[in-house]
Amino acid sequence: MQLRLSRLVVVFVLLFALLCSIAAQTMTPNDRPLLGFDRASTAAERALEARFDASLHPEDLRSWLKRLSARPHHLGSPYGKENAEFIASQFRAWGFDTQIEEFSVLFPTPKTRLVELISPGKFTASLTEPAIPEDATSNQQSEQLPVYNAYSVDGDVTAPLVYVNYGTPRDYEELAERGVDVKGKIVIARYGGSWRGIKPKVAAEHGAIGCLIYSDPRNDGYYQGDAYPKGPWRNENGAQRGSVADMPLFPGDPLTPGIGATANAKRLDIKNAPTLTKIPVLPISYSDALPLLRAIWGPVAPEAWRGALPLTYHIGPGPATVHLKVAFNWDMATARDVIAKLRGSERPDEWVIRGNHHDAWVNGADDPLSGQVAMMEEARGLGELAKTGWKPKRTIVYCAWDGEEPGLLGSTEWVETHADLLSKNAVVYINSDSNARGFLGIEGSHTIEKFINEVARDVTDPEKKISVSDRQRARQILNGSPEARREARERADLRIGALGSGSDYTAFLDHLGIASLNLGYGGEGDTGGVYHSIYDSFDHYTRFGDPDFAYGIALAQTGGRTVLRFANADVLPYAFTNFSDSVGNYVREVGRLADDMRDETKEKNRRIADKTFVAVFDPTETYIVPTPDAPVPFLNFAPLQNALARLQESAQKYDAQYVRNARAGGGKLTPQTQQALDQALMQTERAMISQAGLPRRPWFKHQIYAPGFYTGYGVKTLPAIREAIEQRNWTEAEEQIILVAGTINRIAAAIDRATAQMK
Amino acid sequence: MQLRLSRLVVVFVLLFALLCSIAAQTMTPNDRPLLGFDRASTAAERALEARFDASLHPEDLRSWLKRLSARPHHLGSPYGKENAEFIASQFRAWGFDTQIEEFSVLFPTPKTRLVELISPGKFTASLTEPAIPEDATSNQQSEQLPVYNAYSVDGDVTAPLVYVNYGTPRDYEELAERGVDVKGKIVIARYGGSWRGIKPKVAAEHGAIGCLIYSDPRNDGYYQGDAYPKGPWRNENGAQRGSVADMPLFPGDPLTPGIGATANAKRLDIKNAPTLTKIPVLPISYSDALPLLRAIWGPVAPEAWRGALPLTYHIGPGPATVHLKVAFNWDMATARDVIAKLRGSERPDEWVIRGNHHDAWVNGADDPLSGQVAMMEEARGLGELAKTGWKPKRTIVYCAWDGEEPGLLGSTEWVETHADLLSKNAVVYINSDSNARGFLGIEGSHTIEKFINEVARDVTDPEKKISVSDRQRARQILNGSPEARREARERADLRIGALGSGSDYTAFLDHLGIASLNLGYGGEGDTGGVYHSIYDSFDHYTRFGDPDFAYGIALAQTGGRTVLRFANADVLPYAFTNFSDSVGNYVREVGRLADDMRDETKEKNRRIADKTFVAVFDPTETYIVPTPDAPVPFLNFAPLQNALARLQESAQKYDAQYVRNARAGGGKLTPQTQQALDQALMQTERAMISQAGLPRRPWFKHQIYAPGFYTGYGVKTLPAIREAIEQRNWTEAEEQIILVAGTINRIAAAIDRATAQMK
Repeated sequence: MQLRLSRLVVVFVLLFALLCSIAAQTMTPNDRPLLGFDRASTAAERALEARFDASLHPEDLRSWLKRLSARPHHLGSPYGKENAEFIASQFRAWGFDTQIEEFSVLFPTPKTRLVELISPGKFTASLTEPAIPEDATSNQQSEQLPVYNAYSVDGDVTAPLVYVNYGTPRDYEELAERGVDVKGKIVIARYGGSWRGIKPKVAAEHGAIGCLIYSDPRNDGYYQGDAYPKGPWRNENGAQRGSVADMPLFPGDPLTPGIGATANAKRLDIKNAPTLTKIPVLPISYSDALPLLRAIWGPVAPEAWRGALPLTYHIGPGPATVHLKVAFNWDMATARDVIAKLRGSERPDEWVIRGNHHDAWVNGADDPLSGQVAMMEEARGLGELAKTGWKPKRTIVYCAWDGEEPGLLGSTEWVETHADLLSKNAVVYINSDSNARGFLGIEGSHTIEKFINEVARDVTDPEKKISVSDRQRARQILNGSPEARREARERADLRIGALGSGSDYTAFLDHLGIASLNLGYGGEGDTGGVYHSIYDSFDHYTRFGDPDFAYGIALAQTGGRTVLRFANADVLPYAFTNFSDSVGNYVREVGRLADDMRDETKEKNRRIADKTFVAVFDPTETYIVPTPDAPVPFLNFAPLQNALARLQESAQKYDAQYVRNARAGGGKLTPQTQQALDQALMQTERAMISQAGLPRRPWFKHQIYAPGFYTGYGVKTLPAIREAIEQRNWTEAEEQIILVAGTINRIAAAIDRATAQMK
Repeated sequence: MQLRLSRLVVVFVLLFALLCSIAAQTMTPNDRPLLGFDRASTAAERALEARFDASLHPEDLRSWLKRLSARPHHLGSPYGKENAEFIASQFRAWGFDTQIEEFSVLFPTPKTRLVELISPGKFTASLTEPAIPEDATSNQQSEQLPVYNAYSVDGDVTAPLVYVNYGTPRDYEELAERGVDVKGKIVIARYGGSWRGIKPKVAAEHGAIGCLIYSDPRNDGYYQGDAYPKGPWRNENGAQRGSVADMPLFPGDPLTPGIGATANAKRLDIKNAPTLTKIPVLPISYSDALPLLRAIWGPVAPEAWRGALPLTYHIGPGPATVHLKVAFNWDMATARDVIAKLRGSERPDEWVIRGNHHDAWVNGADDPLSGQVAMMEEARGLGELAKTGWKPKRTIVYCAWDGEEPGLLGSTEWVETHADLLSKNAVVYINSDSNARGFLGIEGSHTIEKFINEVARDVTDPEKKISVSDRQRARQILNGSPEARREARERADLRIGALGSGSDYTAFLDHLGIASLNLGYGGEGDTGGVYHSIYDSFDHYTRFGDPDFAYGIALAQTGGRTVLRFANADVLPYAFTNFSDSVGNYVREVGRLADDMRDETKEKNRRIADKTFVAVFDPTETYIVPTPDAPVPFLNFAPLQNALARLQESAQKYDAQYVRNARAGGGKLTPQTQQALDQALMQTERAMISQAGLPRRPWFKHQIYAPGFYTGYGVKTLPAIREAIEQRNWTEAEEQIILVAGTINRIAAAIDRATAQMK
């Protein structure tokens, strides 16, 4: 009997445990407190977000897109000014304290453009994108910027042509193996494979005297799908404008590196501006490229170099001899940033900054207006909430940037002008740019990876009625590597990409160390084929981008939630174990990079010593056996690994303490402590920069993320170490390991100070 | 003192050992006895080979190639008969006992060929390869076979067109995912990705009513290099003739499966001939395909399906509607095999058989004459040796086959006619076909892998003056997988490929179990672009194939050494550890195949259950979620593994015993024992076939190698097991594991009997 009773007790205890566990499991995600909120403030936030969602209307996006893309509106254009004023008027109407901030920036526009084949045969490139009846704004020639690359130097050169594929450093190694030298030649590269500005930069480093960049149909033309206007892809006359300034050195106005391009700023002489190209550059369509490529003989290009044109790709040099002449009006333009603020009620000196540029190369319906109109709708929604009494805890700043296309001018000059205030006040910068049907893409600072995952779990995909997070997860399961697939299934949060460059977050993140995000939908809408052409129009976007603006609304919901939560949170929603997890990956990657280079060097040198290359190459073709590389030494990664270990411990402690506090109701923290914690958290981001900056490019100060010196947009994580290894600069690699380890230790210390605030 | 003396002794002993070791190491390869020879007979053999090499002249190859390719010489043509008679006269002049053996075979030639686009628009395909001034024989229209696929049925069909990529089973899975059904449609497939005969076979299995096969410039046209006559590759009008008989069922005359097509053979009715296609088929050039492909709409083809034509590849179906009409003269033709014998002096009933076909689709300079003239020079060299007194120990049989192109007719009918004698007497069959500049390619039976490696080590590459073996090894190091690279550096012998089908070794190996080799140089000469076209001409070959016939001589040296060594060896030069090594790989592969399919099935079913596909696909496009597959069971591979273990042991014992005998001078074996050993060795090959043959295709009797039922030329090793697994027929897989294990045990037993002969 005794025994039976005690058994009964055990059964009851087990049953109770089971019920508790079921209760915990059946708690819906919406019952869980949001990061930075306690249970009560979470409920209020969710109610607010429901009202926010209900206020969003796709018709707004459509009418704004139609209006803003009605005429060409590049930097300095009359319609660009009208657009800035229209956007500012809207923000004012929604209750934002709005102003237009002006900067005076160098903005060359074409005076002369000439590409002609001198021999064999004669051909003059049209350099023109013609109007087509199916596209209503394509006929606005008088206001369209012609096809050109901004910040090319003036030049008048005649020389044989060499086809250099994408024009990356690796491509020049292949040329060298085939005995082809570009010295004194004009190179023709295809778009893709790297950011466009890398092509003339690397060409000039190898002695080329001119650079043409063309759009191969393989990359964004008929090979991908039907060409415009039948389908969305680039047609034979479509060409890609774009900046070729050396932005990996510094973005923004070429004459005012590091300082705001205000009226009275001290400016460099144009002839001393280091980010202008060294050689003349011009982009062309494939109909203009075809006669040039057909006239190049010499070795057949390697398989990976071949595009989709109906010809045999040869490398040259020549016999195609080309005359390239470009001259520019080296004028100053006024960049007009629209800055709209909603003052924080409790912590006005903590700024949540949201931005999207408004300037385009031509009409720019997709790039940037698809993001711009979603951001505007988001701001309108916030304005409505504010009119019904809601007040953000922190200050919200909406920014519609000008001059992004020529070189992130509007955002960079604004950041440089207000650097001190921003360093003190900015808690996050949230960027968007183009947007279309498809999957949520997120890149950003890994300290807010956990936060943005919560946001993505709460936004519903308009096509599939599942969360945009689950849809992205499913995509990684289908298309990712086995490792990505495993992570997509097993990791609590989707891993977000690191930020390189290519849009307006660059100055915030890389120059000042402000945690940043870049958000945008895509992957189903086909807008790549009209990128930076006159055909990036309302007509194109509403056929192929996001016809019913459902993904514009999804972006407004995503960006709006991000802003609202950052503005309303009790404490800033940073978390650090996701960050230390990604830094751990980067540390392993740079180690593996050195190991792989060591193996590859050994293998290459062995092949040279064993005469393996000599045994294989076809003696009827030119082949230059490479010279051996010095062996790759073993580097001392220990300082980095020790710093990582410390970071992991600090991250773990913060996140654990945060969870303990949250479990305890979060009530322990007074508003003063919360504010102090916010300040401490901001400092964890600032600790990621070093005032000395990266080697040879001090403007770039972030030690975890940077755009690659030879990739342009593509990110290099732990850039100082990674690029030193890639460049085989072992001394610098060893030095930078120590410096970056120091940075990581300082980040850990800053996290520890934040943790201390919670105790 | 005592101590010192003993030390001195030790030093002397060590010094002596060192000197011995140096002596062993400095022994040149030429001092080592050849496989099958003792030291004395090796020296004699090497001396003979030196005389043989000295007798070879490239001018012979050039003049024969010019003569034999002077006019079209397909099966049944007047010039084909002249060529056979010329070749026979040459062999007779060189001292061979020569005859022409005739077979009467079904050989349809075109009566009607029509391809027209009915809508949208009108277009009639030219179906013509025009003469070009740069190619002297291209204007011989009256004798040229028009472009067609032999053994297509007659047909007259009109239907919408569907683009099916290569037309493999996997391609139809992709079509199904996109909701595209070919039932009642005409398919258009591109050449490549599988043997051509698979395309109409699989299309018909899926309900298509007609099949066009075109040559995409991506595969062998301007994408690869300049088109003929500027360069070697297929031009816009070049098209590929070829057989589409269902040769994986059985090759040879469609009316006489398994028996020789002699005058009085019992023949099937044409309407009952199982290897004719089920639907009409016609090959076309890309200039004829272009208007058809442009008129196909519907889903854009997946990236891997896209060729190099300047259009967006769509799948359809339609709207392109095509009328395809073909009708043939269903005539009998006479195949003329030239059979030339040099009787063996000691073991005349052991036959070393060497062959290359002489028929072409048109002028066939590369295919097959480049191999044919090398083989003729080789035979002439042997004839010269014979005239100076050399006598082969075994009988040598040179064969110039007719009717290879339509379906391996000449070789298959000869093998079927003489099956009993060949089973008894044939010790090896050595094939060649096309030949050009480059690297020695070897495929064959792994029992002679060690032997052919010795040959390859003794032939010098004419361009690099290193052995052709070393050059192939270097190529594998540069281009191979990490595993292939490791093997190329570390394995004593180059691993040779297994034989599928595609040339005249098929009946010898697959039907009778005669150890076979296929030899040919290539990889630098560019002849693929004129394959089976009128442009495969003397003019083309002497510009792009092997202009100075240096690789023709290399092939004569390789083939000649192979014949001479097999003919002269004291004992047949088989060895078995290389064989058991490769069989071990195959056993692991089929196990891994089942494991991989199990994982893939699990993953696919999980994606279906988790709605992963549903979450990702673009709702504006058709996507049919696949149905789950039954899980892949674990199969009992133990019988196979046990048989493999036994084979490995038997192989090891034979090779070890052979080495012991060789060390002992080989003198232990009397001529009678040697002959008995030869017989035992022949039986090891015969043990590889099973009289029942493969499931559903009893003509194919080899249990280790077969052409794939759905690949055509591509080999399937352990075919009965591998294909059962691929087809998800688990019951058959289990049955075949037991049967193949039995075969492997019988091979092991046969090897043991050979080993016993040496003791």
